[in-house]
Amino acid sequence: MKNEIFRLKSYLCVGLDTDITRLPKHLPATPEGMLAFNQQIIEATADFAVSYKINTAFYEAQGAEGWHVMAETLKAIPVGKFTIADAKRGDIGNTVTQYAKAFFEKMSFDAITVAPYMGADSVTPFLAYLDKTVVLLALTSNETAQDFQTLPVGEEMLYEKVLRTSSTWANPSQLMYVVGATKATYLQKIRAIVPHHFLLVPGVGAQGGSLEEVARFGMNSEVGLLVNASRSILYASAGEDFAGQARQEAQKLQQEMAITIDKYAQR
Amino acid sequence: MKNEIFRLKSYLCVGLDTDITRLPKHLPATPEGMLAFNQQIIEATADFAVSYKINTAFYEAQGAEGWHVMAETLKAIPVGKFTIADAKRGDIGNTVTQYAKAFFEKMSFDAITVAPYMGADSVTPFLAYLDKTVVLLALTSNETAQDFQTLPVGEEMLYEKVLRTSSTWANPSQLMYVVGATKATYLQKIRAIVPHHFLLVPGVGAQGGSLEEVARFGMNSEVGLLVNASRSILYASAGEDFAGQARQEAQKLQQEMAITIDKYAQR
Repeated sequence: MKNEIFRLKSYLCVGLDTDITRLPKHLPATPEGMLAFNQQIIEATADFAVSYKINTAFYEAQGAEGWHVMAETLKAIPVGKFTIADAKRGDIGNTVTQYAKAFFEKMSFDAITVAPYMGADSVTPFLAYLDKTVVLLALTSNETAQDFQTLPVGEEMLYEKVLRTSSTWANPSQLMYVVGATKATYLQKIRAIVPHHFLLVPGVGAQGGSLEEVARFGMNSEVGLLVNASRSILYASAGEDFAGQARQEAQKLQQEMAITIDKYAQR
Repeated sequence: MKNEIFRLKSYLCVGLDTDITRLPKHLPATPEGMLAFNQQIIEATADFAVSYKINTAFYEAQGAEGWHVMAETLKAIPVGKFTIADAKRGDIGNTVTQYAKAFFEKMSFDAITVAPYMGADSVTPFLAYLDKTVVLLALTSNETAQDFQTLPVGEEMLYEKVLRTSSTWANPSQLMYVVGATKATYLQKIRAIVPHHFLLVPGVGAQGGSLEEVARFGMNSEVGLLVNASRSILYASAGEDFAGQARQEAQKLQQEMAITIDKYAQR
């Protein structure tokens, strides 16, 4: 992933949150239509994106056929791109072993998002796959993240405790964190706790974070960031030109990213 | 569900954590074999169980075919049983809406387990389905539950804060909690915070909690408990008599439960 980031001067992750009800009208509102849409989005954006994130919920909503579309979409992603199953799984050991089979063996994702509530048990079985990565929720971008994530736990907030504790479970090559971009002011605190881990930042674009601010406070010498954009790319146009418009949107983000890499990252 | 509990004098939930590698030898180790196994387990235990819980991980590990087995298994569960998707999903609103479609529309589960880390956003979209129930993780039975769930947050522990906060999101007809049986001593504290909610208690049987202790401290006047058993029932025998042995195991638990209902529940 790191080579690809410097090669493309991009840390763009395209989020394939493909809503069957929002496909362009010339495509059928069917699982087959979703797959065709994804394949064209991937092809159109691959020059500018280093990563693709598949939000499992949108596929599960279509049942077994949707699950098949997810697997086929993954196959359409070019070799060298970092593929993330945005599944937010989290369970006890023997169940996590099954999730690892689902996402790392039956399908061949590079990474999976995981919720921290059940502790190390939710992460450990994934770590047996040495070339795979767990992306742990730390601070999310939604409004009610504050219900629990920012509660004071001793001297710090819960999400800081999650970062501090979990960072001992695996080294940065196997562990990343989800950090909501709308909380860019928190990024300095986060980088003080986990200077070397990659951060997956949703919430730029439709969810509205500032790329410059994320880069300024979140980037490390290896870049250390993946910034996700979903709706702003997928639905850039509702017409037959959707792929071309998606490409332009991705390119625009990549160009902004290139500037921030030059400004903030040192090799 | 409440009628069924008093009719059968049982609060047994059978957990269909069906591991394709642990099927009896006379069944094929295929998705079809899983389905045949589940159908026989359900038929054998339906006289004693009021609820069935499908652990989605074991089905996802078989890909789209496994997802199909999950949907077909759900159809094999008799009307009147309370069906739970043990999916531990948790995400932001527009994603949760998709999970609701997956588990409440595309399939017709009565309930889904949900992780609390992202706050109310992870629960609210499910509540639009007035006849469905969210089962929120509170205190889980695994060892590393202590990494975060029992951290002190002000005067109480995180899981208590989760209970107190989330109990304002929905009334007890739409909200239940997962409470690990190995923490039965915590049940008194939990009942002080949520006296009326149903509790889903895993960890009796293979995970080793005491049914008497759970009933003593966890039962309310409407019983208010579902106790899950998975491996002790599913794998009671590895031979051709697996269904008969599963039935006996379920009946044994039901008989213990009937005693505790007479002892601790008042209509």
